[in-house]
Amino acid sequence: MAKSKKKDKPVILITNDDGIAAPGIRNLVDSVKDLGKIVVVAPDKPQSGMGHAITIGVPLRLHPVALFEGVEAWQCSGTPVDCVKLAVDKVLRRKPDLCLSGINHGSNHSINVIYSGTMSAAVEAAIESIPSVGFSLLDYSVEADFTGAKKYARLIVELLLKNSFDKHLVLNVNIPAVPEELIAGMKVCRQAYAKYEEDFMQRIDPSGRQYYWLTGKFVNFDKGKDTDVWALEHNYVSVVPVQFDLTNYVLKSKLEKTWKL
Amino acid sequence: MAKSKKKDKPVILITNDDGIAAPGIRNLVDSVKDLGKIVVVAPDKPQSGMGHAITIGVPLRLHPVALFEGVEAWQCSGTPVDCVKLAVDKVLRRKPDLCLSGINHGSNHSINVIYSGTMSAAVEAAIESIPSVGFSLLDYSVEADFTGAKKYARLIVELLLKNSFDKHLVLNVNIPAVPEELIAGMKVCRQAYAKYEEDFMQRIDPSGRQYYWLTGKFVNFDKGKDTDVWALEHNYVSVVPVQFDLTNYVLKSKLEKTWKL
Repeated sequence: MAKSKKKDKPVILITNDDGIAAPGIRNLVDSVKDLGKIVVVAPDKPQSGMGHAITIGVPLRLHPVALFEGVEAWQCSGTPVDCVKLAVDKVLRRKPDLCLSGINHGSNHSINVIYSGTMSAAVEAAIESIPSVGFSLLDYSVEADFTGAKKYARLIVELLLKNSFDKHLVLNVNIPAVPEELIAGMKVCRQAYAKYEEDFMQRIDPSGRQYYWLTGKFVNFDKGKDTDVWALEHNYVSVVPVQFDLTNYVLKSKLEKTWKL
Repeated sequence: MAKSKKKDKPVILITNDDGIAAPGIRNLVDSVKDLGKIVVVAPDKPQSGMGHAITIGVPLRLHPVALFEGVEAWQCSGTPVDCVKLAVDKVLRRKPDLCLSGINHGSNHSINVIYSGTMSAAVEAAIESIPSVGFSLLDYSVEADFTGAKKYARLIVELLLKNSFDKHLVLNVNIPAVPEELIAGMKVCRQAYAKYEEDFMQRIDPSGRQYYWLTGKFVNFDKGKDTDVWALEHNYVSVVPVQFDLTNYVLKSKLEKTWKL
């Protein structure tokens, strides 16, 4: 990984989508605090499910906060992607050497990568030529045990700081919700083909009008043993490298032949 | 494309991210009205830049509206992705044969595909096994001339209804902002590697506090002649097939070798 000067500590930007007060981001900061100069820029409120949303019609606020001992931290009124953009342009005024997002409270495996604010922040960093990793623990609880997640977050950051990787690297790392000693190790995987089957909950408000809550059942269509879902079911930490070139090259060839343009 | 019964008209779901009152969606409905049974479910307000955001903490509203002559239409308080989900689960109560999104006011070529609500609605449909197309005209004006865009939208829908394609097909179609007779035809392309260089505009509010507007300069790093940006610069309609498997398989192999897990 490129550092500005050989002897300088690497600059590590940390963000999330659960908001700057979530336990997950505090655990992430703790786990890598001594590996670089940490700067936190994170949303001032929960931003789960925001995907790659950016804030266009409304201005953004950015305030310094003293939430992490000895670590510069800012809360931002926007989305996780806004946080990365503001961090680079207005807080750091340079590209950090690495961007970390999370640790998310809840899984971001398989199709979740597309809805996840945690992962979209990481993808945004990679678009800006900043290698990045999103971390998610398969436990939604505020009292989740982050011991295993912290260990693997640190291990992955050490690996990335040691080896030189592409500046567009993005890793989607999910950690199973089991005690640290039961984690079987790490597995590099592909994204499982899975989806949510929608089932909106229909209710009536006090004025007699209908409204809907989004709910859904997770369905995994993918029986492959090389997927993130398989790895997590077998107590591995799943590591899926992610790309932002969304071109479907197989379909591209097929269309070129079929449409004869 | 699979139809429920051979003789039935195909059911075509239409949505957008500029909101149900935008001229673009009206032009899209007009261009394909006689090719199937059209149902519109679109946001009740502009939702540009919402990416793949879904609404989690807030319930959704859905109301029928009489905005399109002879066409069933509903406005939804959520994001473009929410619209597709609600359309399938609560409006149609079945999968439509095709989903169309747009016509967006402004381009969604290259990296814009990731931020675009128009394209995320189309991708959501494809996740749900509904072939889909997002259309965007390279003209932000409310008074934009949609003549060429309408012609090519219809042509592409006809091609898709004639040939059988994968149920996960997603096309990102951009139309150059030139008079119809100057359009050079259609080109199947890959997504150009480009990004926005952030330059937040900093201002002071009446209370003396800073705020920021997101702005940015578009930079195309990609000199390839097979990209959507190249095609549009040469007056072609660009057609990029899009995928939702975000796995970076090249990086996956590299990591497996380097990390020796």
